[in-house]
Amino acid sequence: MKLATIRVNGTTRAVRVDEDKAVDLGENDLVAFLRHRDWATRAADADGETYEGALDYAPVLVAPEKVVCVGLNYRTHILEMGRELPSHPTLFSKFARALVGAYDDVTLPASSTQMDWEAELGVVIGAEVRHADTEQARAAIAGYTVLNDVTARDWQYRTTQWDQGKTFEATTPIGPWLVTADDPAVSAQGLSLTCEVDGDTVQKADTGDLVFDPVALVAYLSEIVTLVPGDVIATGTPGGVGHARKPARYLQDGSLLVTRIEGIGETRNTCRRETQ
Amino acid sequence: MKLATIRVNGTTRAVRVDEDKAVDLGENDLVAFLRHRDWATRAADADGETYEGALDYAPVLVAPEKVVCVGLNYRTHILEMGRELPSHPTLFSKFARALVGAYDDVTLPASSTQMDWEAELGVVIGAEVRHADTEQARAAIAGYTVLNDVTARDWQYRTTQWDQGKTFEATTPIGPWLVTADDPAVSAQGLSLTCEVDGDTVQKADTGDLVFDPVALVAYLSEIVTLVPGDVIATGTPGGVGHARKPARYLQDGSLLVTRIEGIGETRNTCRRETQ
Repeated sequence: MKLATIRVNGTTRAVRVDEDKAVDLGENDLVAFLRHRDWATRAADADGETYEGALDYAPVLVAPEKVVCVGLNYRTHILEMGRELPSHPTLFSKFARALVGAYDDVTLPASSTQMDWEAELGVVIGAEVRHADTEQARAAIAGYTVLNDVTARDWQYRTTQWDQGKTFEATTPIGPWLVTADDPAVSAQGLSLTCEVDGDTVQKADTGDLVFDPVALVAYLSEIVTLVPGDVIATGTPGGVGHARKPARYLQDGSLLVTRIEGIGETRNTCRRETQ
Repeated sequence: MKLATIRVNGTTRAVRVDEDKAVDLGENDLVAFLRHRDWATRAADADGETYEGALDYAPVLVAPEKVVCVGLNYRTHILEMGRELPSHPTLFSKFARALVGAYDDVTLPASSTQMDWEAELGVVIGAEVRHADTEQARAAIAGYTVLNDVTARDWQYRTTQWDQGKTFEATTPIGPWLVTADDPAVSAQGLSLTCEVDGDTVQKADTGDLVFDPVALVAYLSEIVTLVPGDVIATGTPGGVGHARKPARYLQDGSLLVTRIEGIGETRNTCRRETQ
């Protein structure tokens, strides 16, 4: 089952996305919808207003309480860099204003010349959870989505702390939908994750290669703070980012950024240089 | 003028705090109240319901969109550590669930044995601002408050990124009120900042010693993302933290933590070890 937030008549609506139409879920966005304890059955049963034709996708979560990001989480990439596998996840965060819809423009800030891609699997929380064990963590996952943690490398490395390079306004595409965790499309151990820039495949990995998988991340985070419906975890990116290439390669005005995960879907964004 | 969020009859209310009473401002909390463009005149003119006797202070901002934190920002402390003054602020962030009221208990997580203090000046945003110049940044500051960025050092240093040690649930006292930026009490260049643990003065500094002052921080952050009413900036802590002492000293179950800024006020919190 696919759930999304779409733009309709100047507002947004939470919807179930079927083959040929979208069905209204009775809330303005998925964050609000996922707060219903019985959201899964409500979503499956919904048969209200429908939307047909091309859908205008908002960020799948419009204003989540938290966007937690994970660094250094693909085993193959860590080992090929000659590093040891980490004993704890590296965590940073992003403000919700960084998010854009699956087909929206990605903003390249006027103040950065090093905007880089980071294709990632996104995990969406569907139940309040704290001090979760493995089973509770698994049950708290509503589903999975596609995102690209587009990063200003020049700002990321100005200091030891990465956050400032990670949260520029309107830089992080997320969507187009979440695929619920019970969907056979995402039940495989590993899903193929790819990133394309102007038609070149620049990242290709398997989500089965994550050092800390979605369940482990939910359990770990819930030791720190209560996770709530609509929270997003960006699970980290594999090798192939532009900053590590020789010569380095960055996103340019007009670049087409496509991020794809097998069984989930793809975001497709044109990068636009900010004019102040 | 002092503005706060207090707990009343199972909900919260935004209030102006006068000498002998608090006056209702017509909104449930200060984040909602500060969204009114004319909040300053509304606050000055308010003459509705009043609350007398002891007030039960909620976090001065209950659910701000952003809590941005600054590291390494006291000049004297940086120089005494033999470091060079930074050219850019070090930024990280905290989730709103970390905040507690000025006299609430501070939670010491069961999973940390190194909970440490960080007395800080808090800056509260009172107007939406993006790409601010100095004057716009100054005008966007609603006022100042007291906070303590209580930190799990063992979690902070598990990886290179500090966030996970900075955002444990119910660890960061903030309040009791904000003092508006036009108040003579906060117009001095520098305000005395102190932290006491069980009666010992462990930190003492002057906010005039900040490398990046509140106006500079607002301008810098607004390059990255739109700041909105209710956003909080924790401006960094001076020397004297427990982790740097020999031997190290940490907060214990029952410790009394008092954080005070001249002209603003103080938070006073008992630390309580979490029992799972």
